[in-house]
Amino acid sequence: MSTAEQAAKLAVVTLPTDREIRIEREFDAPLERVWQAFTDPQLLAQWWGRGNKLVIEKFELERGGHWRFVEHGPEGVHGFEGRFREIVPHERIVQTFEWDGMPAYVIVDTATFERVGPDRTRVVSMSLFHTTEERDGMLASGMEGGLNQSYAALDRLLASQR
Amino acid sequence: MSTAEQAAKLAVVTLPTDREIRIEREFDAPLERVWQAFTDPQLLAQWWGRGNKLVIEKFELERGGHWRFVEHGPEGVHGFEGRFREIVPHERIVQTFEWDGMPAYVIVDTATFERVGPDRTRVVSMSLFHTTEERDGMLASGMEGGLNQSYAALDRLLASQR
Repeated sequence: MSTAEQAAKLAVVTLPTDREIRIEREFDAPLERVWQAFTDPQLLAQWWGRGNKLVIEKFELERGGHWRFVEHGPEGVHGFEGRFREIVPHERIVQTFEWDGMPAYVIVDTATFERVGPDRTRVVSMSLFHTTEERDGMLASGMEGGLNQSYAALDRLLASQR
Repeated sequence: MSTAEQAAKLAVVTLPTDREIRIEREFDAPLERVWQAFTDPQLLAQWWGRGNKLVIEKFELERGGHWRFVEHGPEGVHGFEGRFREIVPHERIVQTFEWDGMPAYVIVDTATFERVGPDRTRVVSMSLFHTTEERDGMLASGMEGGLNQSYAALDRLLASQR
């Protein structure tokens, strides 16, 4: 893979307002497969935790349902949880997100799935924070690197399904 | 009780910013008793649900702990839940709040307890919403009336302890 191709695989992170983070990333797979990788807990477990072991304690994919993941990485164990606000199949998932390390700091994440081509799918994630300080804290936490690791793991999963 | 005294018993609701609601209310009881009424689930169950039956399914009063209450009122059953961010005994509780009817719409509530006199305590609650629309929806929901009913039930509980 050339350097340009590798660069193309990084998520594009922008700050549309002072309390939001927008993340755009394309995947070489049909929309249905990408949707499945985001909504089937067996598949989610293979990429969400940056390639680390991920225990899915709860994943109630419906309005009002709760989710809880525990990542077991070399630097420790981290719990994450939230609740689903809206699920529109093959289009959109709106859910909350919080990390056990900062309990009750709650982000609203909206993931939108767009068909770019028969084997190309764009995922746009918008994260809304209660305050600018929380948003900037997330940016400073190394989120972007972790996200790119997770999406690289998702690339590998999608490639293995071809 | 005179009309003036009754009026003095209503919470003072103000809107300090476009995403916040501030609620101030005084109670005729020592700070320690008011704190106890907010933190002992046996006591909370007697006033939090506006005098309706309240089932406390979870109340883990510590940083990162979860809470969940179910109110059984004449107009139906309503679940509420959240998580504790910070607890400073006799001073402050910061926690999230969401109603099952609007899952994943999360409010951050900060309750501050102030000693006004040996038998008078002020409770100031600040609620922070993700959007102005959510804040205004809460105001339009009849929140203020329900809150005053709950605080009247708390007045009765505190009076019964004298």
